[in-house]
Amino acid sequence: MLTQDVCNSFIDIADLNQLKWNLNRLQPVDAAEYITRAPQQKRAITFRLLNKNQAIDVFEHLPSEVQKELISSLHDVQVAQIVEAMSAHERAELFDELPPGVVKWLLQELSPEQRQATATILGYPEGTAGRLMTTEYVWLREGLTVGEALRKIRRQDEDKETIYYAYVTDNKRRLVSTVSLRQLLFTIPDAKIRDIASDRVVKVRTDTPQEEVVRLMKRYDLIAIPVVDREERLVGIITIDDVVDIVEEQATEEIQKLVGVSGGDEAALSPSGITIRKRLPWLLGIMLLYIGASSAIAPFQSTISMVPVLAVIMPLFSNTGGTVGIQALTVTIRGLGVGEVTPKDTLQILRKELTAGLGTALALGFTMIMLSLIWAPPSERWVALVAGTVMATNTLVAVTLGTLLPMGLKRLKLDPAMMSGPLVTTMLDAIGFMIFLSMISMALNVFHLKH
Amino acid sequence: MLTQDVCNSFIDIADLNQLKWNLNRLQPVDAAEYITRAPQQKRAITFRLLNKNQAIDVFEHLPSEVQKELISSLHDVQVAQIVEAMSAHERAELFDELPPGVVKWLLQELSPEQRQATATILGYPEGTAGRLMTTEYVWLREGLTVGEALRKIRRQDEDKETIYYAYVTDNKRRLVSTVSLRQLLFTIPDAKIRDIASDRVVKVRTDTPQEEVVRLMKRYDLIAIPVVDREERLVGIITIDDVVDIVEEQATEEIQKLVGVSGGDEAALSPSGITIRKRLPWLLGIMLLYIGASSAIAPFQSTISMVPVLAVIMPLFSNTGGTVGIQALTVTIRGLGVGEVTPKDTLQILRKELTAGLGTALALGFTMIMLSLIWAPPSERWVALVAGTVMATNTLVAVTLGTLLPMGLKRLKLDPAMMSGPLVTTMLDAIGFMIFLSMISMALNVFHLKH
Repeated sequence: MLTQDVCNSFIDIADLNQLKWNLNRLQPVDAAEYITRAPQQKRAITFRLLNKNQAIDVFEHLPSEVQKELISSLHDVQVAQIVEAMSAHERAELFDELPPGVVKWLLQELSPEQRQATATILGYPEGTAGRLMTTEYVWLREGLTVGEALRKIRRQDEDKETIYYAYVTDNKRRLVSTVSLRQLLFTIPDAKIRDIASDRVVKVRTDTPQEEVVRLMKRYDLIAIPVVDREERLVGIITIDDVVDIVEEQATEEIQKLVGVSGGDEAALSPSGITIRKRLPWLLGIMLLYIGASSAIAPFQSTISMVPVLAVIMPLFSNTGGTVGIQALTVTIRGLGVGEVTPKDTLQILRKELTAGLGTALALGFTMIMLSLIWAPPSERWVALVAGTVMATNTLVAVTLGTLLPMGLKRLKLDPAMMSGPLVTTMLDAIGFMIFLSMISMALNVFHLKH
Repeated sequence: MLTQDVCNSFIDIADLNQLKWNLNRLQPVDAAEYITRAPQQKRAITFRLLNKNQAIDVFEHLPSEVQKELISSLHDVQVAQIVEAMSAHERAELFDELPPGVVKWLLQELSPEQRQATATILGYPEGTAGRLMTTEYVWLREGLTVGEALRKIRRQDEDKETIYYAYVTDNKRRLVSTVSLRQLLFTIPDAKIRDIASDRVVKVRTDTPQEEVVRLMKRYDLIAIPVVDREERLVGIITIDDVVDIVEEQATEEIQKLVGVSGGDEAALSPSGITIRKRLPWLLGIMLLYIGASSAIAPFQSTISMVPVLAVIMPLFSNTGGTVGIQALTVTIRGLGVGEVTPKDTLQILRKELTAGLGTALALGFTMIMLSLIWAPPSERWVALVAGTVMATNTLVAVTLGTLLPMGLKRLKLDPAMMSGPLVTTMLDAIGFMIFLSMISMALNVFHLKH
């Protein structure tokens, strides 16, 4: 395997023949990375060094900006060839990025078969099985023998995305069973497909959300899953390599949304304009939410000036309470995300969170009392008891909100990761401070504890 | 496909024959779920209804507690058969959970070949390629023809984990090339393996970390990757189904560690004892860290009692600054986690974060001034300017720490997700408060602004 470091050294090799030989020997994804990292003005020249098959494979691995760039600088014939050879769902992804005029031209250049496949896939909304599928798969009739099936598979175009499963359809093209290439190889050629194919078919519909596709493929350890339409007719398959990418994208979204990155899809090297656009809304959101939260604190300014140790205790209170809430929130959102739990389990999770929360509340309340005693001057030591009690209560409120908010969103069929961490901590701050400061000023009034 | 709801209804079906028929028809993972959800005393009986092959497949999908339970209640002969038929790396996982006495007995019962395979896998540390691999794969000699290779594959035990790639080795069993079943099927039987096999082999070593295995399989869209030892000898393969699980586990770990769940592997339905053990350490950690942070605040108690609006502003300050830091931290950790960036990109990321941070700093500083003006009584309006300036500075500090801390850990070959969110917010609080309160008391002293 040629590593990236080897790739980088090519940049300075003047000998184009040497570069050509190397580029055509590389794995397509590595050659694509080499081209992407090359200076913009050299990309098209470098790409032209690839021979036809390698060019087709490499093109699929290029980021869409570079694909766009190349389309405008290559010969029309070459572009048409490459786009014709792309798999239908990768072509659909590219078309999403291109200007409508270019898409129209490219569609005209496609063979009728590929044009049809692209149109089908573009007809489904993003995030559904229809959009992820490829229309290149192997299908067989029930009546064939194993030998005939193997001969049919051998006659297929080599481009079929996977030949490791074949799908058996009836005369209306409805999916009835599947058979793996492995089964075909291990069975005598005279056996009928009907007798060895499995009718325990795990399949999805074109409108099945991609999360469900992932769940099923993981659960049944599939390397491909068939996609059917409303009439149960086979229209495509989804392969495992796309699923690995979805699992990772989903996790990135979840983790980033949780910390207040809108959309949850910022890359570490995104341009700074995108970074601002993705992060600033929640930050300003928090500040505005604080107008609400501050109305909980503002009336107590005189209390605070009477008991200044509060200013030391309150940030600790806020940071710890927020963390408790976000821990519960994260574990719940992740449990929903990987399909480990559903809203049906709400009560069970809440029971567990409250039981654990009780232990945590006692530990944190006690520690809060200890720490407050360290900071408070003798005349303000009574504050420690109030702080400890409120800390404990706040912990229970935090785990309850952290569990119920995402579960509620999920039940309403909304995205549970919408409930971002900053929102939850702000809510907890407002609730906690209000309880805490009310109790302190009540104590001041009732017991005339100070001044 | 029989759904879970259908499964649940079996529980009340008295007719064991019906249950037996259904269980043997289900997908193994569904039957395993049915057995896991059954009351404990019925599990062993239910499991015995499975016929031999189904029992073997179902057993692999049971959670390890249920596996343990069944091992103690089934006949020794049956247990030995099932364990013999498990794939070596799943057997290694089970052995990790069982008492040493049981493992010793089971090892004796295994065939010499399986015993060897298990010992090999158990010899590698968790989290490495050696531990994930299966020793069941197809290998071929270079000199064979395609026809001979296909016949050899057909003669293989049906249990081989994947037959979709075959690995070509030299006479010292060193891996030299790979050939896919697809290539074998599409080539004339008389061709030599040596002429069609690809020597662009992507492989890993037994001690390669699982994250790197995932990265390579994703990058090259592989459904299996070969594992070699130090002498380049082929010792096993890792298949894609295990990789999907690792991607998901890795993301869960990352996301949970980030919010202060130790180990990052709490399940939504973990018992509450585990929940406490995983979450409390960081919570207590934050409180103790606050002893440090508070030494930054405590000396300023008199300042706060003179300017009580500070108590309203400080939580906002702390919450927003913390969020800015965690956003940068999360995007960086995730970028490292999915292999999008490496410590080499530190400067580039920092430049982007600071550019974006500058925009964010201006927006937040300005908003802070506006909000402080709302809350401050006329005599304390000058505080707004200080708050805005410090908010802006703090934003830049936050994005810098959020980028450099995980990058530094990664460079030291430590886990960047160790740098949890609560730790970063606490650091930011301490730094921010100290700057803020120092500036306020300086202003009080220098300008005699109050009283």
